Amino acid sequence: MIPRNHPRYTSLMLREKIKKAHDKGYLADSGMIAHGRGEAFDYLLGERTTDNGRKAIESAVATLLLAKNPIISVNGNSTALVINEFIELAKILNAKIEINLFYRTKERIAIMKELYESHGYINVLGTDDKKLLYIDGIESPRATASENGIYSADVVLVSLEDGDRAEILVNNNKNVIAIDLNPLSRTAKMANITIVDNIVRAIPLMIEIAKKYKNKDNKYLKSMINNFSNKINLEESLEIIKKT
Amino acid sequence: MIPRNHPRYTSLMLREKIKKAHDKGYLADSGMIAHGRGEAFDYLLGERTTDNGRKAIESAVATLLLAKNPIISVNGNSTALVINEFIELAKILNAKIEINLFYRTKERIAIMKELYESHGYINVLGTDDKKLLYIDGIESPRATASENGIYSADVVLVSLEDGDRAEILVNNNKNVIAIDLNPLSRTAKMANITIVDNIVRAIPLMIEIAKKYKNKDNKYLKSMINNFSNKINLEESLEIIKKT
Repeated sequence: MIPRNHPRYTSLMLREKIKKAHDKGYLADSGMIAHGRGEAFDYLLGERTTDNGRKAIESAVATLLLAKNPIISVNGNSTALVINEFIELAKILNAKIEINLFYRTKERIAIMKELYESHGYINVLGTDDKKLLYIDGIESPRATASENGIYSADVVLVSLEDGDRAEILVNNNKNVIAIDLNPLSRTAKMANITIVDNIVRAIPLMIEIAKKYKNKDNKYLKSMINNFSNKINLEESLEIIKKT
Repeated sequence: MIPRNHPRYTSLMLREKIKKAHDKGYLADSGMIAHGRGEAFDYLLGERTTDNGRKAIESAVATLLLAKNPIISVNGNSTALVINEFIELAKILNAKIEINLFYRTKERIAIMKELYESHGYINVLGTDDKKLLYIDGIESPRATASENGIYSADVVLVSLEDGDRAEILVNNNKNVIAIDLNPLSRTAKMANITIVDNIVRAIPLMIEIAKKYKNKDNKYLKSMINNFSNKINLEESLEIIKKT
């Protein structure tokens, strides 16, 4: 048990969630290493949502609310950290949830499907191997997508995503929103909107903002998108990290 | 198999070594997460030994050569990455190797003992639970040491070390040399000499420099130590990371 007054309490609790997901069998070894990278970047970011991160989140939520078929793409790490928040966000946005794993195995998919079901979310996509299509006909495990989900999506929210996968989605004209703590990563550079923040802070804030924006008209939402430059936002996030 | 021309080949090969050590059972889950943190900091450092890192290494080697009872403290991560180099460095420096694990279990110690033996190093210290002493009488797993090893050492080389452990060693008047990619870590700040570098580059360079310094007199070695300020060196390493 980690004492509540430990100076690294929050960080250590997240680490425990990641380890538990690994023990349960749905998070790969590499997922633990990836979590460590995230810890380091979050440390340098000051372990807080910056004003800059908030701006990216506002533009992202507006984009998701205007989408025709928005999808939240989830993997082992993100599920371990924010499964409940993903489900709540999906409901508010009228979005679907699709599982996409870098190290896809039948066993991992089955465990995650059951996990989402036990949290009250029944129709998680991307679970049936036989029904998966290849984006742009690219026969790579990085290019798989479910027909009614990512394959036909106009906006995809990815978090802690692999660079190759992000590239395929962008090249296929998906509007890609990425949550990534490393502003220098290929995914961060490739996405249309990059939220440089920890998902454990970003997703709850997206929920809060989505609730507010639901009552706004399209004109307001479009202005939130048009007033946002991902290039400038990314540069500012990098500056914040360097100032630490 | 990772193709040799992959842009991240070296980094991915190190990751494979860490995963293999985890599979073999001597590297804890947290060790994988720690490796990921190291990857992130090494990325920001430019994945190279800086001039600054080299200066710290020179001072460290001089200190180890002048020591009466120098010990190389090893754990699961460092063993996974540089076991052969540790053994070579120990021979050149007339130093002993002692195992010290954050998550110590009988099983992990046994696997590591056997691993060092299979690599030709027979007398690895810190393997017999019953013979371990507590530094400064602190009855914590962070404070254990073998009698002829760390307990009576004047100089201890630690890599990827926990902050609490480093603090105990420093408070016990050990001259602590730390290899740590995070210049902001508690270990980095607490050590007498901090080498901000990846151990896979630092240990081979220490071997090279130790071979050269073996022929130098004590006056020369002492000048290498006196001309070095850890505070300034750490600040410079931080500046390099910020300039990335």
